[in-house]
Amino acid sequence: MDRCTLTKATLGRLPTYLNYLKSVVDNDHVSATTIAKALSLGEVQVRKDLNAVSGAGRPKVGYETDALINRIERVLGAEELTPVILVGAGKIGKALLDYGGFNEFGVDIIAAFDRNSEAFEFGNKGKKILPMDCFESFCKERKVQIGIVTVGANAAQQVCDIMVKSGIKAIWNFAPCRLDVPSDVIVKQENLALSLAHLNNQRNNLI
Amino acid sequence: MDRCTLTKATLGRLPTYLNYLKSVVDNDHVSATTIAKALSLGEVQVRKDLNAVSGAGRPKVGYETDALINRIERVLGAEELTPVILVGAGKIGKALLDYGGFNEFGVDIIAAFDRNSEAFEFGNKGKKILPMDCFESFCKERKVQIGIVTVGANAAQQVCDIMVKSGIKAIWNFAPCRLDVPSDVIVKQENLALSLAHLNNQRNNLI
Repeated sequence: MDRCTLTKATLGRLPTYLNYLKSVVDNDHVSATTIAKALSLGEVQVRKDLNAVSGAGRPKVGYETDALINRIERVLGAEELTPVILVGAGKIGKALLDYGGFNEFGVDIIAAFDRNSEAFEFGNKGKKILPMDCFESFCKERKVQIGIVTVGANAAQQVCDIMVKSGIKAIWNFAPCRLDVPSDVIVKQENLALSLAHLNNQRNNLI
Repeated sequence: MDRCTLTKATLGRLPTYLNYLKSVVDNDHVSATTIAKALSLGEVQVRKDLNAVSGAGRPKVGYETDALINRIERVLGAEELTPVILVGAGKIGKALLDYGGFNEFGVDIIAAFDRNSEAFEFGNKGKKILPMDCFESFCKERKVQIGIVTVGANAAQQVCDIMVKSGIKAIWNFAPCRLDVPSDVIVKQENLALSLAHLNNQRNNLI
């Protein structure tokens, strides 16, 4: 994935732009106005998104279609998927392991780990669930830098420490607890209950 | 749940405040300074959160502990859980159905629905997975206003239309597609792939 800091909203629209651009690849150039119309998006938003990814288009000419496609693919990391591992092969862990939508965004959950040997098996798409004792060597060999924590709150910090020791630099934490990490490791806290509660709060204020 | 518009971040801290307040309920009053110290939070943040929920504390006295507990419980809807239903009892659907953290935030997934009769069963916690043909009557009888869509993109709009017809006013959509709804219905789009991609983007910019 190429370096450029994007908002989550911009990042979320990139696959849509990419699909559209691939459908008009016969045109050498494409303008933000054309893209906005075709996708029913605001022109200002399209310009902002594309500027963040690739710089401004040329006035009255727009963007070179091929170059823009390449640029978006590089930002999305589509040509080389970033490997991700997951620890905790319970229901949420298995659901994520089988979720089909990650590759479009350049990430790939390549394996899950669990300390419960009953969980060892091949997932639906041939993805392995492995024992924890090969975690560190697996991550170091494959240079995995992103880990997902889907164990319970009581085991999460221990799993996090093993991840950090194994070279993981970014952790997506589904356990309902804070994780202590060194300053060079990012933690993204996921709280599904909070997302639902927030929707409930918004609904209450609309009634 | 009482009416007051809260940010997701404030809402997320309310259970922490509530647990702390219940541990000091013997003190008639409690100040924002004391709460902030006990929970290692910024004092400004604590004041802002509590003001949003309950109004300002009295200078030099703080908040009445009992009243603040009651107020937070009412905002969280802890004394009366809001019923939620889910359609699509695949892996993500079942993971949400079994997830234990919702009640703390005043919401309760009371049943799941699926059109695949093989899925009909009782979940781990005695929650039913029911056939779609009793969806509308179930929702209307129990006055359910929140629905979760965990079917595939191809079936999501159809499920959404049935939800709207059955009185659902807020939809949490896990399917990777936009839903068309009337203006009095809220849709919150969940995109797990995008969350992981965004974490990957942040990590890339830190290397």
